[in-house]
Amino acid sequence: MQALRGGVMLDDQRSGCPINAAIEVLGDRWTMLVLRDVMFGDRRHFRRLQSESEEGIASNILADRLRGLVEAGLLTRDDVKRGQRATYSLTEPAIQLVPVMAQLAAWGLRHLPTTRELRVRAEVLSDGGPPLWEDFMAELRERHLGVPRPDREGPTASERLAAAYEAAIAEARSQY
Amino acid sequence: MQALRGGVMLDDQRSGCPINAAIEVLGDRWTMLVLRDVMFGDRRHFRRLQSESEEGIASNILADRLRGLVEAGLLTRDDVKRGQRATYSLTEPAIQLVPVMAQLAAWGLRHLPTTRELRVRAEVLSDGGPPLWEDFMAELRERHLGVPRPDREGPTASERLAAAYEAAIAEARSQY
Repeated sequence: MQALRGGVMLDDQRSGCPINAAIEVLGDRWTMLVLRDVMFGDRRHFRRLQSESEEGIASNILADRLRGLVEAGLLTRDDVKRGQRATYSLTEPAIQLVPVMAQLAAWGLRHLPTTRELRVRAEVLSDGGPPLWEDFMAELRERHLGVPRPDREGPTASERLAAAYEAAIAEARSQY
Repeated sequence: MQALRGGVMLDDQRSGCPINAAIEVLGDRWTMLVLRDVMFGDRRHFRRLQSESEEGIASNILADRLRGLVEAGLLTRDDVKRGQRATYSLTEPAIQLVPVMAQLAAWGLRHLPTTRELRVRAEVLSDGGPPLWEDFMAELRERHLGVPRPDREGPTASERLAAAYEAAIAEARSQY
């Protein structure tokens, strides 16, 4: 088991149920949204995470959740010199949240109102299933952890996600 | 798309992203834990949901979350005469959360400290993968919605989950 939550002990948790344990780490709406934006939006800096937030995250909440995610072992923050922007990277446990995000997305897609531009990536992810999630995790490992991605033919997972998103944006623009 | 959240409109949400939409409905720790207990623990009444809660849910929080889940369209509450206990049932959208719960459980199992008795069902669920989740959803549809389950050979999903749990409890008892 990898060390998460800076050496959290069982006694610190409300129960030793794996679902509860996961929720205690992730169970704050903004925490999941910040992870989503780093993961799918490749937003690695505070400023982009705030200015491009679809949900309009407040800067104090963003700062708090980023700190919590680093403490929990889900993000790392590179050391920066004064005046430089810090870059956040996903850790391996955070990358392994891709299937959780994909299932949440599939469920939201099926049961709740969503907007076309924000929906298409979830559709691609949901339709692609576990093989696409594995490809996407391999890409995230390369981008965030420097682990070379196995050679694969055809467009990468993020290229497929980006293409679907761009097409939906273009279509929306052509309609208005 | 099924009606969830009592006819919630897109405008009520922070964004039209499917992950955000899902989190706006589910993104409270206690909401997910109540759903987990109805789903995996077959706890259908207020009293059992409270007294058997592994995390010690407070009665006012439980009452609030049950009300919210009914409003959101994830649980139904049967009409009861005075003095009778109300029974809560999962709706179809709630039953479709099984894969989300399974992925959360698998992730918690892999990355966080958990206790043996509360871990074994998550292990069975995670190892069984999508075919077991489908079986379990079919059982929940029978139990909560009255939809007859297709005939299958061998033990049902909940029998497999229960057997693993009983075995872990027995083993724990024999050790102390």
